[in-house]
Amino acid sequence: MDYKQKSLDLHKKLKGKIYIPSKEKITPENLSLVYTPGVAEPCKLIAENAKDSYQYTARGNMVGVISDGSAVLGLGNIGALAAMPVMEGKCVLFKEFAGVDAFPICLNTQNVDELINIIKNLEPTFGALNLEDISAPRCFEIEQKLKKVMDISVFHDDQHGTAVVVLAGLINALKLTKKSKENIKVVISGSGAAGTAITNFLLAYGVDNIIICDRDGILEKNSNQYNIFKKDLADKTNKNNEGGSLADAFIGADVFIGVSVADIVTREMIERMNDNPIIFALANPNPEILPDEAKKAGAKIISTGRSDFPNQINNVLAFPGILRGALAVRATDITENMKIAASIAIATLIPEEELSEDNFIPRAYNLEIGPIVAASVAEAAIKDSVARVSKTRDEVIKETKSLL
Amino acid sequence: MDYKQKSLDLHKKLKGKIYIPSKEKITPENLSLVYTPGVAEPCKLIAENAKDSYQYTARGNMVGVISDGSAVLGLGNIGALAAMPVMEGKCVLFKEFAGVDAFPICLNTQNVDELINIIKNLEPTFGALNLEDISAPRCFEIEQKLKKVMDISVFHDDQHGTAVVVLAGLINALKLTKKSKENIKVVISGSGAAGTAITNFLLAYGVDNIIICDRDGILEKNSNQYNIFKKDLADKTNKNNEGGSLADAFIGADVFIGVSVADIVTREMIERMNDNPIIFALANPNPEILPDEAKKAGAKIISTGRSDFPNQINNVLAFPGILRGALAVRATDITENMKIAASIAIATLIPEEELSEDNFIPRAYNLEIGPIVAASVAEAAIKDSVARVSKTRDEVIKETKSLL
Repeated sequence: MDYKQKSLDLHKKLKGKIYIPSKEKITPENLSLVYTPGVAEPCKLIAENAKDSYQYTARGNMVGVISDGSAVLGLGNIGALAAMPVMEGKCVLFKEFAGVDAFPICLNTQNVDELINIIKNLEPTFGALNLEDISAPRCFEIEQKLKKVMDISVFHDDQHGTAVVVLAGLINALKLTKKSKENIKVVISGSGAAGTAITNFLLAYGVDNIIICDRDGILEKNSNQYNIFKKDLADKTNKNNEGGSLADAFIGADVFIGVSVADIVTREMIERMNDNPIIFALANPNPEILPDEAKKAGAKIISTGRSDFPNQINNVLAFPGILRGALAVRATDITENMKIAASIAIATLIPEEELSEDNFIPRAYNLEIGPIVAASVAEAAIKDSVARVSKTRDEVIKETKSLL
Repeated sequence: MDYKQKSLDLHKKLKGKIYIPSKEKITPENLSLVYTPGVAEPCKLIAENAKDSYQYTARGNMVGVISDGSAVLGLGNIGALAAMPVMEGKCVLFKEFAGVDAFPICLNTQNVDELINIIKNLEPTFGALNLEDISAPRCFEIEQKLKKVMDISVFHDDQHGTAVVVLAGLINALKLTKKSKENIKVVISGSGAAGTAITNFLLAYGVDNIIICDRDGILEKNSNQYNIFKKDLADKTNKNNEGGSLADAFIGADVFIGVSVADIVTREMIERMNDNPIIFALANPNPEILPDEAKKAGAKIISTGRSDFPNQINNVLAFPGILRGALAVRATDITENMKIAASIAIATLIPEEELSEDNFIPRAYNLEIGPIVAASVAEAAIKDSVARVSKTRDEVIKETKSLL
C-alpha cells in the first residue's frame, strides 16, 4: 500500500490526531475543586495578578497553531477547513518532540485585518503562537503587526522554522567546505515566505553577499516593479548590483538555496559555481535539481526537503524546541539571536568528527533535539532581555524532558 | 485545610487542568503519514468535500468553550485571563462526563461585534460551541447572531444549561406534588442570563403563568423602562397583569425559582404560596432562602445550587450530554425540543418509585448521565431535522461510552 492510502487510513482510524484529556481524574471529592465553587480561587488570584495565569492554568505550556488555509503545503489556498490535518499534525509534533501542548485553530477568513484582530484577541488563551501556512506577502504583515501588539512569542514557522534549519545546515556545510560566512556568495531561488525569511536570517547571521531570484530573474535594486516586501529584500541584497537570470546568478556562487519549484537548476548552472558547491534544493516534493544530477555537476554538499534523501531540511528540527524554549522563560518575542541559537544547537548536534557530506543535518526523528534547542533558545531570550523568568540550561532541558 | 486552599494547591500542582496528547505515538515510520508528505491526502479530500472534515480531523468531537470573562461565576467582570480556570474546568467536565474533547478559549475583547466576528470565524476548528460566562444582555445578542450565521451548534450554558436542569427538577417536583405544568403559577427572581433562559424555556415547555421579578419588583407589560430583551420577557409573561414587589408575586404561587441574590426570600413570602410550595433557591453561594428556613415556612420541595444540600441544580447534569448529542448527529442547531429532551432524560434518571423530596434531582457526579442525555438530544435533533447524520439511541450511547 502506498503512503497516500496509509495516511488516509491512519487519519480515518484516528478521527483527529489530538485529544484533550483531564490531567486529574474527576472524583466526587475533587469536582468542587476543579469546578465551582473551588475554581473561583485561582480566578481571583489571576484577576489580581495577571502573571498568576502561568501558575494556575495551562497557558504557560500552550501554543496556538493558527492558519487561514491560504498556503497549505504545496497545495495552495485550500481554505481553513482543509488545512486542519496539517495543523493537527503540527500539534502532535509539538507534543512529541518538545512536550508542548498545542491546539490547532483554523480561521474562516483570509482578510488580513480580521486575522490580526482575531489572533491578537486569543492572547489570554496561549503562551505562544505558531502561525502556519499563511500565504506571502500577507504573512509578513500579519506576523509583523502581531509581534508589535502581542506580549507573547509569535513565530511563523514557514518563514523562520525553515530559515533556522537552513542556517543549521549551512553552518555545517561551511565547516565541511572550509568556507566562511563572510566570504561566500549565496543564491536564493524564491522570494516567498521561506525565501524572504532565509534572506533576512542569513543577513542577520552575517552573510552579506546574497542574490535573490524569483521567476523573473535576479532581484535588482532600484526596480519599481516590487511590492514593499520584495523591495525591502532587493534593497538589502545584491551588493554588487548583479542582473540577469537565475543561471547568471550562479556564476561564482558558493551556495544555492532553492525554495521555489522543481527542476529549474541544471548541471550547467552548478558547473559555474566556485569550488565545492553547496546545494540546498528544497522545493517539495520535487527539488530544483535531483541530488544525483547535482553531484554529477560537482556539488559537494547536497540537501533537500525530502526524507528519502540524506540531510533533509525539516522544520520539525526547529519549531518544537524554539517554542518550548520561548515558553520556558515566558519570552515576549522571538529574536534573531534566539533563532541563531537554535540553528547552532541543531548544527552542533552532530559532533565535528562525525560531520560528512552524508551527515551534516540531524535526522528529523530524534527526541534529543527538542530539549537542547529549547535550552539554547531560552538562554538567548534571557541574554536579549525578552525573557520574563530566568532559568538555567539544565533547568530548561530537565523541564522539557519531563513534559515529553 | 479548607476547600479554597485545596483548590489553589490542586491548580498549582497541575498547572492547567487539560493537556493535548497525540492519539498515536509518533515513530520514524509514521512521521511522514501524520505530517508531510502524507498529511496532504486528507487535506485534499476535505478541500473537495467539506464534510470529510468529520472523517479525518478531531472536529467531529471537538467543542470550543468560549468566554470573554465578563460575568465569571459570581465574581463578575474579571476579564479573559482570569476566566481561564473556569473554562479549563468546563473542558475537563466535558471530557469526563461525555467523552467530548473541549478546548478553552478566552478572548481579550468585550466588544459584542468583535466577539461575534471572532467566534464565527472559529467554525472550521470546532464541531460545536459552548459559550460561557458572558454578561447579560450582551450574551443574548451574541448567541442569537451566532446561531444565525453558524452551521454548527451554539449553546450558551449559563442560559440553557441552567434552564434544562431547572426543568428536569421541576418535572419531578410536579410529579411529587401532583401538580401539572398547565395549572401552576411560577415566580422567577432574576432577569439576567439564567432567568431569561428559564422563562423562555418554561414557556416553550408549556408553563403559561410566569411572573418575573427583578430588583424593582414584578416585570410589567407596557413598561418603557426596559431594554429590548427585558421588554420581550415582560411581553411574554405576567398574563394576569400583576404588579408590585417580589413579596406580592408570591401570592398564590406554586413555584419559586431564584437566580438572583442571597436572602431576599422570607418565610412570610413562602407562607403566601399555594399548598406544597416548590422552592428552587439557586443564588450561589448563598441562596435566596436557606433550605431549613424554607422548610419551616412549609416548602415541600427544595432545591439549591449548592452541593452540600440535596437536590443540587448543577449544569454538569446537562451540558456534557447536550453537546455530545449534538456532535453525535452533527446538529446544526440546538432546538427547544433538544433541550426539553435533555430535561426529561435527566428527570427520568430517578425511577418514579425512588422519587422523594430528598431525591428528585440526580447527583452531579454520575457517569451514566452523559450518554443517556446525549442519546435523547440526538434523537430530538433528528426529529427536528437539524441533524446531518442519523444514529439510533443505542449507537449514540455506545459511541459516547467508548469516548469516556
